[in-house]
Amino acid sequence: MSDQACQPVPVGIALLHHPVYDKNRQVVATAVTNLDIHDIARAARTYGIVRYYLVTPVAEQQALASRIVRHWQDGWGATYNPKRQEALSLVQVADTLAAVQADMTVRYGAPPCTVVTGARGDARSVSCIDLARRIHTGTQPVLLVFGTGWGLTEELFTQADLVLEPLRGPSDYHHLSVRSAVAIYLDRLFGRS
Amino acid sequence: MSDQACQPVPVGIALLHHPVYDKNRQVVATAVTNLDIHDIARAARTYGIVRYYLVTPVAEQQALASRIVRHWQDGWGATYNPKRQEALSLVQVADTLAAVQADMTVRYGAPPCTVVTGARGDARSVSCIDLARRIHTGTQPVLLVFGTGWGLTEELFTQADLVLEPLRGPSDYHHLSVRSAVAIYLDRLFGRS
Repeated sequence: MSDQACQPVPVGIALLHHPVYDKNRQVVATAVTNLDIHDIARAARTYGIVRYYLVTPVAEQQALASRIVRHWQDGWGATYNPKRQEALSLVQVADTLAAVQADMTVRYGAPPCTVVTGARGDARSVSCIDLARRIHTGTQPVLLVFGTGWGLTEELFTQADLVLEPLRGPSDYHHLSVRSAVAIYLDRLFGRS
Repeated sequence: MSDQACQPVPVGIALLHHPVYDKNRQVVATAVTNLDIHDIARAARTYGIVRYYLVTPVAEQQALASRIVRHWQDGWGATYNPKRQEALSLVQVADTLAAVQADMTVRYGAPPCTVVTGARGDARSVSCIDLARRIHTGTQPVLLVFGTGWGLTEELFTQADLVLEPLRGPSDYHHLSVRSAVAIYLDRLFGRS
């Protein structure tokens, strides 16, 4: 089979609002923000992501996220901006990362390879090029996990199947917003196909 | 001189709130948003941009933008998050694109090569690889121009020195937020040096 004929495996993304660190390295649940939903859904739709999971264990936050998504799916927003509706159709609210993994297993027939991201890096980091190759030639679905606040906990890094290389520019400043980081990673993985 | 020793030319970015199109292709002035300031300043700082111009002719909007920047520069935010202060030190409010070009000319000793961006593309588009080469081997400062709302006007495209290639993923959906687009362009231009 030629390279052109290879179908990439299904790739989902999860934005975790818990467990993540705050500024003082306490494990917290951060608040859902409207622009995290919109910007990341639009990038996900652009780069062929199959599902965008918004993960929070807080019932009120789940309700808020669901209300925002419904507004653009079925409410006034759906008529006002059908392109936004198309992007937000990828969004699914979930309680935990385990629930996301279980959902992907049912949807795509196998447990996903869980890939965590963060600014600090890790000795076992894989490059975007290597992960892109795996996505285009492998058979296992992939789940990219992003943290809000001050990033994913160490425990999540330890439990993950893979750690993706941190994003670096030419400066010593590495403090991108999670919205920017998701956009850049998706472009590195899927933007030059 | 080896490649490593080449200093890139100064590169600024301008986020235009006017003149841009709205949904019905009317030329409007859009509102300044807090997250456009923060996300783009953080990406600019990460990728070595020398100046981030926030362009709006509306006095109230200029005042709002300046107040947000001051909060993180000198106010409570500066102590709370010094990393944010560092990024926001790049931000400068300007009336018009012409004022930005004039400011860059004074600061960097020559008028900038003005490069516009947009989702629709243009017959004379240059690739990110070609622009990166120019930045690393040229002598003229570069100004990257991004539009809010539904994008920069045709007139700006006609007047620009260069048009940068549109961002494309593997899908037929091309509706990234301007925050995502800036992050991806900066990574394509500076992220692998």
